[in-house]
Amino acid sequence: EREIRLFSLNSNRPLAEEIAKEIGIPLSDCQVKRFSDGELYINIEESVRGDDVYIIQSTSSPVNETLMELLVMIDALKRASVRTINVVMPYYGYARQDRKARSREPITAKLVADLLTVAGATRLITMDLHAAQIQGFFNIPVDQLLGVPLISTYFETEEFKAKDIVVVSPDHGGVTRARKLAERLKAPIAIIDKRRPEANVAEVMNIVGSVEGKTAILIDDIIDTAGTITLAADAIVQAGAKEVYASCTHPVLSGPAMERIDNSSIKELVVLNTIDLQGRECSSKIKQMSVARLLGEAIMRVHEHKSVSTLFD
Amino acid sequence: EREIRLFSLNSNRPLAEEIAKEIGIPLSDCQVKRFSDGELYINIEESVRGDDVYIIQSTSSPVNETLMELLVMIDALKRASVRTINVVMPYYGYARQDRKARSREPITAKLVADLLTVAGATRLITMDLHAAQIQGFFNIPVDQLLGVPLISTYFETEEFKAKDIVVVSPDHGGVTRARKLAERLKAPIAIIDKRRPEANVAEVMNIVGSVEGKTAILIDDIIDTAGTITLAADAIVQAGAKEVYASCTHPVLSGPAMERIDNSSIKELVVLNTIDLQGRECSSKIKQMSVARLLGEAIMRVHEHKSVSTLFD
Ligand SMILES: Nc1ncnc2c1ncn2[C@@H]1O[C@H](COP(=O)(O)O)[C@@H](O)[C@H]1O
Ligand SMILES: Nc1ncnc2c1ncn2[C@@H]1O[C@H](COP(=O)(O)O)[C@@H](O)[C@H]1O
Repeated sequence: EREIRLFSLNSNRPLAEEIAKEIGIPLSDCQVKRFSDGELYINIEESVRGDDVYIIQSTSSPVNETLMELLVMIDALKRASVRTINVVMPYYGYARQDRKARSREPITAKLVADLLTVAGATRLITMDLHAAQIQGFFNIPVDQLLGVPLISTYFETEEFKAKDIVVVSPDHGGVTRARKLAERLKAPIAIIDKRRPEANVAEVMNIVGSVEGKTAILIDDIIDTAGTITLAADAIVQAGAKEVYASCTHPVLSGPAMERIDNSSIKELVVLNTIDLQGRECSSKIKQMSVARLLGEAIMRVHEHKSVSTLFD
Repeated sequence: EREIRLFSLNSNRPLAEEIAKEIGIPLSDCQVKRFSDGELYINIEESVRGDDVYIIQSTSSPVNETLMELLVMIDALKRASVRTINVVMPYYGYARQDRKARSREPITAKLVADLLTVAGATRLITMDLHAAQIQGFFNIPVDQLLGVPLISTYFETEEFKAKDIVVVSPDHGGVTRARKLAERLKAPIAIIDKRRPEANVAEVMNIVGSVEGKTAILIDDIIDTAGTITLAADAIVQAGAKEVYASCTHPVLSGPAMERIDNSSIKELVVLNTIDLQGRECSSKIKQMSVARLLGEAIMRVHEHKSVSTLFD
């Protein structure tokens, strides 16, 4: 019998505890501390020889700390003779640096893939990669779960069924995601088409598709400073929408995000808990849904060599 | 003609500038910034195609930040088609985690070696590795320079020639280093022999060798919290030494270090500038010597395919 073991590092312990409860497997003990000079020290407190290990860690802010914590943990597990090292990374940091947009830029998302692999990871389970191509940065199996099915359930209530809904993508890159949500909600889509009419002139937000009189639901993968999403919401209201909801998988919400959301025309912002928001001052507009069940199910399926792909939709 | 290029990241810019001046090659421009969420962004501002690049970066505190900065920079350079990527790392962070002292510990010094290599480093130039074995963690060339010859010059003045000197190693691991300094100063050595007489009893510091009436010079590779070195100094004074100097290559000096040094019987602490102390509140006992010339010379020799080993002593 192969033993399954769950470990949580420090980026999202509440989610890890929920996952553990969900699948009925307790979190194993490991000591993560810092020496006086800030260097990380990890020690695994129980034998893990021959085990299948799942490490739950989002590489959210502070990203370099959470990433190193993960790498050092993988190294310790590898040397402790585990059978497999499955990294459960609900949020994959540095995913937006996925190509050279300019000359002489790094491709940090690929660097992270190489770092994880050289440390000893044997599988990655993650959610909504900023670009699906990041799967190809790895030579180990990658399971990518999508947030849309879960987000969709928030809007599948009687309350929303009575509304005239349109799903809106805040940019061209997100159209596939918006279409997936729209199909589930049996709603049409619209797309925000940002254009800079001339150099050094502010961008203009055109809306492709009709939002007039409707309940708009914006969907994105990441909401970071919330600039794009709040401007999009304002443009949608300007175009005659009745109300605007927003949603995303990864609530990065850095810098001015909370204030912008509070001051925006967004009515509610539906986010998942791939990134821990506990202990942060949150806008009351934010509704957080848990991915614990989804990730727990994925872990069990991987462990039982079953397909994870049916969890994708 | 192969072009040589120097880049400095953020851990020790004063040293990088000194090295640049020393060898008459200006630092090249690169932009290192952070996005709102704390993710690093690097962009190299000039073409480096076909160049031999030297990146000056100590992985000192905050170690995970300085290390990631270096890895992202290496990735960017690799993609910018440089010829070689030479990492000049005066201080190698995580060097003390160089073996499994207990079961299920990581060997982070080896992890760091793998991270640097997979990112694309083609050579490492470093100083006083905590264990020389770390060179073997790499499959790329490693040049290790020693601090002793430079530290020795501090004590080769007329003032010290008039004194009756003994060089003291604060532990068994440092005896080779102490011997090297003692040879240069034509002085005998002594060794601190820490023993715990029984479990749960404080350690006792025995001194192997004679220090009575002498000027003792303690030497270590790293001084971190300064616990070991200040206790050693007190034990040496207790044993009848006239005065105690201390020295090290890497002034980590974390936590209570400054206070301990100030309150100790150490007269002066001679350190090198592998770690930047500018902007820190320093004990007036600390005398810092520069490795700029040594590292500049090493860079030029590597570039000219000359041996670096004569710089070792
Ligand atoms: N953490 C980050 N915050 C903001 N922008 C980023 C971040 N990481 C990468 N980028 C930039 O975002 C762009 C990619 O975003 P996108 O066009 O939405 O795929 C690239 O130009 C990146 O340089
Ligand atoms: N940054 C650090 N600060 C203090 N101790 C450390 C640090 N990194 C590693 N160690 C520990 O120091 C010991 C190695 O030191 P040494 O015996 O001097 O080689 C190991 O037990 C490590 O766990």
